[in-house]
Amino acid sequence: MSAGKLIGVGVGPGDPELMTLKAVRTLGEADVIAFFAKAGNESHARTIAARHLRRGAFELALLYPLTTELPSCSSAYRDVLCGFYEDAAAAVAAHLEDGRIVAVICEGDPLFYGSYMHLHTRLATRFATEIIAGVTGMSGCWSAAATPMAQGNDVLTVLPATLPEAELARRLADADAAVIMKIGRHLGKLRRALACSGRLARAIYVERGTMADSVAMPLAAKAGDDAPYFAVVLVPGWEQRP
Amino acid sequence: MSAGKLIGVGVGPGDPELMTLKAVRTLGEADVIAFFAKAGNESHARTIAARHLRRGAFELALLYPLTTELPSCSSAYRDVLCGFYEDAAAAVAAHLEDGRIVAVICEGDPLFYGSYMHLHTRLATRFATEIIAGVTGMSGCWSAAATPMAQGNDVLTVLPATLPEAELARRLADADAAVIMKIGRHLGKLRRALACSGRLARAIYVERGTMADSVAMPLAAKAGDDAPYFAVVLVPGWEQRP
Repeated sequence: MSAGKLIGVGVGPGDPELMTLKAVRTLGEADVIAFFAKAGNESHARTIAARHLRRGAFELALLYPLTTELPSCSSAYRDVLCGFYEDAAAAVAAHLEDGRIVAVICEGDPLFYGSYMHLHTRLATRFATEIIAGVTGMSGCWSAAATPMAQGNDVLTVLPATLPEAELARRLADADAAVIMKIGRHLGKLRRALACSGRLARAIYVERGTMADSVAMPLAAKAGDDAPYFAVVLVPGWEQRP
Repeated sequence: MSAGKLIGVGVGPGDPELMTLKAVRTLGEADVIAFFAKAGNESHARTIAARHLRRGAFELALLYPLTTELPSCSSAYRDVLCGFYEDAAAAVAAHLEDGRIVAVICEGDPLFYGSYMHLHTRLATRFATEIIAGVTGMSGCWSAAATPMAQGNDVLTVLPATLPEAELARRLADADAAVIMKIGRHLGKLRRALACSGRLARAIYVERGTMADSVAMPLAAKAGDDAPYFAVVLVPGWEQRP
């Protein structure tokens, strides 16, 4: 093991005040602040953490290649992404080999659907690592909507809206509470799956969860099926609530 | 609406540094700090938040009645608990009616299997409320174990170990990733369900997730089936990880 240390730092779901004390302290101590972003876009994690970055820290932007011309199920797409993660890990490793502390800032929680995991699996066998848990995007969403999600012996399921309609319906019927992510162009299909599983009346649609301009409403009240990729639908459990 | 405000404040999974900046600020502004605890026990939430309680804030302990002599499935047990939550809500409401800010501190996240929800459902129609999301216990556990949990289109399920063995096995086989809570005396049954669903080799046992003396190990390496109620078993997803 070299003296360097890789730290996955969850910075929470969007509101900078939902960063933890530990995340703030860690950013004040890191030599290198690394973050993933799409080429040409701001990093959400960097925007959230901006006021806590140490003056003089080296910023390492890990910029996703443009892959819009490749179907996401193609092996060419997977090869491009895999090569990108290898290069990103090598760029981080170079700093770790020089004994630096590298904080990788992550929206939400680092180990819950986060890009950080691609670095962790490639580097954790060679370098010391630490994970600083963060408030997840889904916690931010149900808090913004003030929706009690799960209680007692409830089973809660987290589903991507990309699943086929019949599988969504089956899984929604089988859970007490559900969080459906990656809504985007799948909202029409999800509505049908919720109706089929008897959950449409309980479903809540949330956009921009913990931003100042967040929107939360019953899904049944939302006009049209246009939705951003990062919108979330919540099906609260605790059906026996008082 | 009165001028009072009810705030559910997530204080995270145990490490006081995993409190958010917003939770800390809110505790500095609250007139009343309320918390649930078992009679005769310290409140975990209060222990986590102790250094941030405002000097002079009124502390309102909401002490669960002793119900060990009643089976938890009996209507007598449910009646005692329901009466307790009604009394707790009334005690909080008295402060809200006087225009005070009441912060209810909660381990983890207030709306994710938390006692705060019993107050929220009883008071949110009468008083202004706010929820401050927190780092969940499960995030604390998989971070302590440095276990990448879910990626891409993984389906993640949160299950109570109290479910019957066959149902546990069915649900474990049907999810890419799983978090099993409330382990306690159910560990032997859970082991069998994990074996039956082909997940035992991946399962990780975590005790005292974000405490200084936390334990994380492959479940297969854990001797015996003794486990505390708050132990957690993680089944990581992302089977195609590099």
